[in-house]
Amino acid sequence: MAQAGIASETIEAANGAAARDLARDYAELGARLARRGVDIEALVGHAQRFAVALPSWGVGTGGTRFGRFPQPGEPRDVFEKLEDCAVVHQLTRATPAVSLHVPWDRPADPAALRRHAEALGLAFDAMNSNTFEDHTPGQLSYKFGSLTHVDAAVREQAIALNVECIELGRALGSKALTVWIGDGGNFPGQLHLRRAFERYVDSLRAIAAKLPADWLLFLEHKLCEPAFYSTVNQDWGTSYAAATAVGPQCRCLVDLGHHAPNVNLELIVARLIQLGKLGGFHFNDSKYGDDDLDAGSIKPFQLFLIFHELVSAEAEGVAGFAPAYLLDQSHNVTDPIESLIVSAVELQRGFVKAWLVDRAKLAECQAKNDALLALQTVKEAFETDVRPILAEARRRNGGAIDPLAVVRAAGWRASCAARRPAARRATAGGIVG
Amino acid sequence: MAQAGIASETIEAANGAAARDLARDYAELGARLARRGVDIEALVGHAQRFAVALPSWGVGTGGTRFGRFPQPGEPRDVFEKLEDCAVVHQLTRATPAVSLHVPWDRPADPAALRRHAEALGLAFDAMNSNTFEDHTPGQLSYKFGSLTHVDAAVREQAIALNVECIELGRALGSKALTVWIGDGGNFPGQLHLRRAFERYVDSLRAIAAKLPADWLLFLEHKLCEPAFYSTVNQDWGTSYAAATAVGPQCRCLVDLGHHAPNVNLELIVARLIQLGKLGGFHFNDSKYGDDDLDAGSIKPFQLFLIFHELVSAEAEGVAGFAPAYLLDQSHNVTDPIESLIVSAVELQRGFVKAWLVDRAKLAECQAKNDALLALQTVKEAFETDVRPILAEARRRNGGAIDPLAVVRAAGWRASCAARRPAARRATAGGIVG
Amino acid sequence: MAQAGIASETIEAANGAAARDLARDYAELGARLARRGVDIEALVGHAQRFAVALPSWGVGTGGTRFGRFPQPGEPRDVFEKLEDCAVVHQLTRATPAVSLHVPWDRPADPAALRRHAEALGLAFDAMNSNTFEDHTPGQLSYKFGSLTHVDAAVREQAIALNVECIELGRALGSKALTVWIGDGGNFPGQLHLRRAFERYVDSLRAIAAKLPADWLLFLEHKLCEPAFYSTVNQDWGTSYAAATAVGPQCRCLVDLGHHAPNVNLELIVARLIQLGKLGGFHFNDSKYGDDDLDAGSIKPFQLFLIFHELVSAEAEGVAGFAPAYLLDQSHNVTDPIESLIVSAVELQRGFVKAWLVDRAKLAECQAKNDALLALQTVKEAFETDVRPILAEARRRNGGAIDPLAVVRAAGWRASCAARRPAARRATAGGIVG
Amino acid sequence: MAQAGIASETIEAANGAAARDLARDYAELGARLARRGVDIEALVGHAQRFAVALPSWGVGTGGTRFGRFPQPGEPRDVFEKLEDCAVVHQLTRATPAVSLHVPWDRPADPAALRRHAEALGLAFDAMNSNTFEDHTPGQLSYKFGSLTHVDAAVREQAIALNVECIELGRALGSKALTVWIGDGGNFPGQLHLRRAFERYVDSLRAIAAKLPADWLLFLEHKLCEPAFYSTVNQDWGTSYAAATAVGPQCRCLVDLGHHAPNVNLELIVARLIQLGKLGGFHFNDSKYGDDDLDAGSIKPFQLFLIFHELVSAEAEGVAGFAPAYLLDQSHNVTDPIESLIVSAVELQRGFVKAWLVDRAKLAECQAKNDALLALQTVKEAFETDVRPILAEARRRNGGAIDPLAVVRAAGWRASCAARRPAARRATAGGIVG
Repeated sequence: MAQAGIASETIEAANGAAARDLARDYAELGARLARRGVDIEALVGHAQRFAVALPSWGVGTGGTRFGRFPQPGEPRDVFEKLEDCAVVHQLTRATPAVSLHVPWDRPADPAALRRHAEALGLAFDAMNSNTFEDHTPGQLSYKFGSLTHVDAAVREQAIALNVECIELGRALGSKALTVWIGDGGNFPGQLHLRRAFERYVDSLRAIAAKLPADWLLFLEHKLCEPAFYSTVNQDWGTSYAAATAVGPQCRCLVDLGHHAPNVNLELIVARLIQLGKLGGFHFNDSKYGDDDLDAGSIKPFQLFLIFHELVSAEAEGVAGFAPAYLLDQSHNVTDPIESLIVSAVELQRGFVKAWLVDRAKLAECQAKNDALLALQTVKEAFETDVRPILAEARRRNGGAIDPLAVVRAAGWRASCAARRPAARRATAGGIVG
Repeated sequence: MAQAGIASETIEAANGAAARDLARDYAELGARLARRGVDIEALVGHAQRFAVALPSWGVGTGGTRFGRFPQPGEPRDVFEKLEDCAVVHQLTRATPAVSLHVPWDRPADPAALRRHAEALGLAFDAMNSNTFEDHTPGQLSYKFGSLTHVDAAVREQAIALNVECIELGRALGSKALTVWIGDGGNFPGQLHLRRAFERYVDSLRAIAAKLPADWLLFLEHKLCEPAFYSTVNQDWGTSYAAATAVGPQCRCLVDLGHHAPNVNLELIVARLIQLGKLGGFHFNDSKYGDDDLDAGSIKPFQLFLIFHELVSAEAEGVAGFAPAYLLDQSHNVTDPIESLIVSAVELQRGFVKAWLVDRAKLAECQAKNDALLALQTVKEAFETDVRPILAEARRRNGGAIDPLAVVRAAGWRASCAARRPAARRATAGGIVG
Repeated sequence: MAQAGIASETIEAANGAAARDLARDYAELGARLARRGVDIEALVGHAQRFAVALPSWGVGTGGTRFGRFPQPGEPRDVFEKLEDCAVVHQLTRATPAVSLHVPWDRPADPAALRRHAEALGLAFDAMNSNTFEDHTPGQLSYKFGSLTHVDAAVREQAIALNVECIELGRALGSKALTVWIGDGGNFPGQLHLRRAFERYVDSLRAIAAKLPADWLLFLEHKLCEPAFYSTVNQDWGTSYAAATAVGPQCRCLVDLGHHAPNVNLELIVARLIQLGKLGGFHFNDSKYGDDDLDAGSIKPFQLFLIFHELVSAEAEGVAGFAPAYLLDQSHNVTDPIESLIVSAVELQRGFVKAWLVDRAKLAECQAKNDALLALQTVKEAFETDVRPILAEARRRNGGAIDPLAVVRAAGWRASCAARRPAARRATAGGIVG
Repeated sequence: MAQAGIASETIEAANGAAARDLARDYAELGARLARRGVDIEALVGHAQRFAVALPSWGVGTGGTRFGRFPQPGEPRDVFEKLEDCAVVHQLTRATPAVSLHVPWDRPADPAALRRHAEALGLAFDAMNSNTFEDHTPGQLSYKFGSLTHVDAAVREQAIALNVECIELGRALGSKALTVWIGDGGNFPGQLHLRRAFERYVDSLRAIAAKLPADWLLFLEHKLCEPAFYSTVNQDWGTSYAAATAVGPQCRCLVDLGHHAPNVNLELIVARLIQLGKLGGFHFNDSKYGDDDLDAGSIKPFQLFLIFHELVSAEAEGVAGFAPAYLLDQSHNVTDPIESLIVSAVELQRGFVKAWLVDRAKLAECQAKNDALLALQTVKEAFETDVRPILAEARRRNGGAIDPLAVVRAAGWRASCAARRPAARRATAGGIVG
């Protein structure tokens, strides 16, 4: 039976104590926005419908090659992972679905897992295949690649795992498969760069052939890591070319941490929208590389500008525009549940602020080449403190006005530690050495 | 009448003095290569046919926004620019064509310019249009863009200049037009990112409609500068998407300095080859950004690896593979003629070393995932000192065994200073302040 | 006689129209902050005392090596530059001093210039020497360096210009000299890297020997540009070593755009504070390199975090902590006056938000390694919309509640265009080509 | 008893077969160099004395957070690690010492380990302390730092481990301790940036107080990873400031992969030489971050330029100049022994080529600001194929003319696989998920 999560009385009590201040803040903000001709109720509506999926692999403590420092109470299997995800959704009401990783999350009984999720109020988002580790003893090794391996037998094995993901996803109610591979080379000469890409497309076509008609296939590009000289799908241009070659069900997925330094991410997002190939996002934040930090923790203005492109596309009614949103973070020094709560709210904040942009005024500035006022128009939205809107949306949706305070006060982590004695992995050692 | 260049007796005398050592070095290298099963004569043949075009704008001293420090004897017009280019070709025999920039190089009498070039032994490579400056008083300003400007009249003006370039090029014997624009935004909000790209493609289509059937249209992408927040054609992915939208005569041109930090350039080259859209190169080198330093001066191994991709494509007989090569450098602290000589030789060196790669052995390493031996196979070629091959190719082609020594000994720059009293631009001030 | 600036009636009328809304917003924000135990009056006090100097070179339109696109009404000399600066200060009340660049701003009569400034309500901040251009015909060239040139005569000439700056600054009431040089190399081998640094320190010592006792000497480091392989003062570590070698009056100045990609700027600021060598800032923003964009336009959270370090040092009473603040931007596509107004406000915003950080709570989080709550504590301040505080500070200081609206409504630029017919530089051509 | 390594007959037989070609190549190169006034015997002498230490942790297969793919025959303990190191030295004669990591390599009986090493012909280089993992059950956790932890007890524990390293090192004959810590923060606000640095210096002083008089203490800086927002010793400037604060026995160690993108490494090396604080190197190569690829595999010209700075300092007789050289690589897709062999040779190649630079001619170019010829002078050395010199040095020193061929032919890895049945770590799983 699914663990009940945080008692609703706890949430209600906390909300009760915070309700009066929120009502006042909300009314005052509403009046200020009304002076600018903005309807706060419309913004709350946007906030209420915002949703981002949770990664099953994000509820355990993450780590680096130098080590992992687990905390007590980590989920030990996919059922417990869902319990933690459910708490995030219970408090934020913004994370109604979970994305699974296979074989990490391979369920013995998919129907039972689906019932477990439904009991927790959760659905299943995109499936993910892991062909970057040798997880199954006796199998062919992925040391030198998977979907692009020079050996057809390894490619077949990797294709088969992806097909299994599709089948599992059908049983669970998922509608998409995300493919990220670690394939690439560490040294000049190691790979025939064009052949590797050809094998990539061929393998993807074999997978796409097994896709149900209402499914999408997302390709995830990455500049480097684990391959440190060349990767097979290294940037959005390659991802776009591959997705085009594979067909209309194939789209590009943007992980915010997978790009070269200085690159303009919102511009890439705009390009993929324009080309009809934006599949979705892996949200996180970073300062140096694929740091997988909490969304909005390092570059909140960039996050807002990405949402500005997304909301503009939605507002303009771009045909076929329906990207999938997923958090993909590594919580190395925080409680994963807390980071997921805060990150979901950060995304919602960016989304709501983007709806606040006065697009008519912005269009006028653009038409006049008034660069300064165009920036100010965008900044007007960014500088607005929309926390009352986010809190009100949570309140109306049945979540917590202050979800972080509630999860701490409720002692969820401590109760997990009591219920889940055996850690996921006893050792905290790293990969190096 | 075209200035005669360096006296052939000067070259012959220098070659005569160097011939014996070269013969010995060449013979010894040939024997060493023969032990590895390599025919040095084939390599000399590759070296002899290597050609890269010279940029007319590269024979004057370059500069930065902080200033320009001209030297005596700079060419004052396109006729004198060709004279300097001719000297580079006379000595290296590797630079038989020149690329012009309009309106900088707009000839009053194209036929006369063509005769001048032919007298100097030069042909004309791709034409280049300048819509990043307000060069013509009274015209509409390019301050806020050219081919992507919000105002259709500005776009028409920019299109017209490109069409003029095509017409001039036809008169001169060129077969390609290269389009680089400075269009973009300095601030978030300034541009509607998708609309700007749509205008870009529309303008390019208007230009492409005027292309002769045997011409190509090259699109040059750039991460930043002069626009510092977003550029309209910011990376190879956008360039590829635009070139695909414009049509089969449209290709992507890679300037080595126009990418984000850390990006794998040879991988981008491989992708464009594979997609049938590699139009050509602007060769230079850089450490930080679009530094426009001399080719091979900072990252010679990267240059070699790029040529490895190019030579592999040629050796494999990739259909339609025929990229255009152009030097595009800014010679701020050197004599431009000397830098062009040295840079042409650097490219030739990369080309010849790439032909030295044992591709059969490399393919075997790749098939076995022998990453270490694959790298060693590539390095075997890179570490080989091919200077005797390059010198012999020049000698056989009628150039100088040691072109740098000859141009210095011949006193070309001093004679220019005497013949060309008025500098191109008297002031050496910068743009800032 | 100094041009009067914008009529005070214009400002008062605009303020009158905006006063009621501001009063309400201010009261409401005050009440919200009071609930968090924060005194809004203290924050207004911080805002009122915030000051940043204006660069004389920032009131003209900037450009890149690809061109400059001037607008009508640009100041033609240092007197007119001060007039424009005065308008920025009149409206923001946050920019009471101007920084001059010599020889660009060399006054024939320093006393007259000082009277002009005083009449405009302006003082003089740090002096700047330009030894990166050959501005004076007949002088020795700075093509290959200035303070670090291999030729002692060139170094002497550059030292003399710096000493002249000190003398001019004394006459004007300045108290500091900022030294930025373009010295460096474009190619490996060009400079003896250690010798160049030794000459740098020797020249600086000669300049420092002429400093009045109450002056400071600021060293400005830069990763690259105009030198594209190596610069003599390339990073804060070199700047710190040089400043230490020169002596106690010598400090390091941080230009936000002069660092390698991905570098943590607030961490560098913290280090220099700690080492007692933080001299001051050149504020701007950037996405790619030394883009010199408007402060806070690209990375506002980074700007806030820098101020968080500065305010923490001030709040902790770090001995000798008194950095100088200067805007240093290139306004290529905006009206420079508008950009300076907006940028001064952005800095003030970062400063006030930094004072909003609950440092006691933050210290507690740090003591407990509560990374998540530490970030939330910092974000609590950043997310707060402090615009009413900034507007109220301007109102109390006699400035404009909405300075951008006022400068536009007042038609300052149009009146300049009428008064200043001859542009600073007629041509809009670039350096390239 | 120490495993005997590769049979000397095997080496001698291989050398015998290769001797004649080497003699000819060597003679021909000697003649060519003699024409340039260079004595090949001097260069062989430099090659023969070149030495770089091996990392004990480098003989096992490395990995990333996404997984590790071990190969058969990996060493299972420090004794077997030394056996593999001995083979590298046996063949290259350039790696006479090994650097240990504690607690990974903590010997139960240091004297026995020393005897084992001596029997293998190996000595011990710098000791390394690991305080970035929780290796010892029951100890205080390093999750939130070690030498800079907010809790004094954790700092004491970390200091104690470093002191233990010194004691072990004394028993083994080492003369240095290298300190790299993973300390830092993942989020703004997590650390008080100045306090963390103060704790770092305090802890280092406590360690330095235990140093024998003839020992050195090396500090290793790193931009990021495992901390992804701020690190305590983030760059060479901080490292230099810390080393200065700790005292004269404390120096800075440069790992080539620990810097921001685009940074000029040879310039940093020159600065540390100049400031008397260059302690040594961790050699490797990288394209993106701390990729830990094989030395010289990505940027061989950069490696050469670093050696150019080192050799210049040696040739000029800079006082106190004696840096320590260590390889520090992660061999994820190659046989570690093969990578170490190739990498040692790459370093030796850079060293010998740097000695080939005509420093008198270079000084002349620098004095004349002849940037072009300065670069050519440096390139003259780089382009020279010095493989006969390296091979001859190995031959004279008793190593293998072609060490890679010998280690493959000798079947060392296969024999290890037979002797060492149990892998170091059975699982190949990663840290993520």
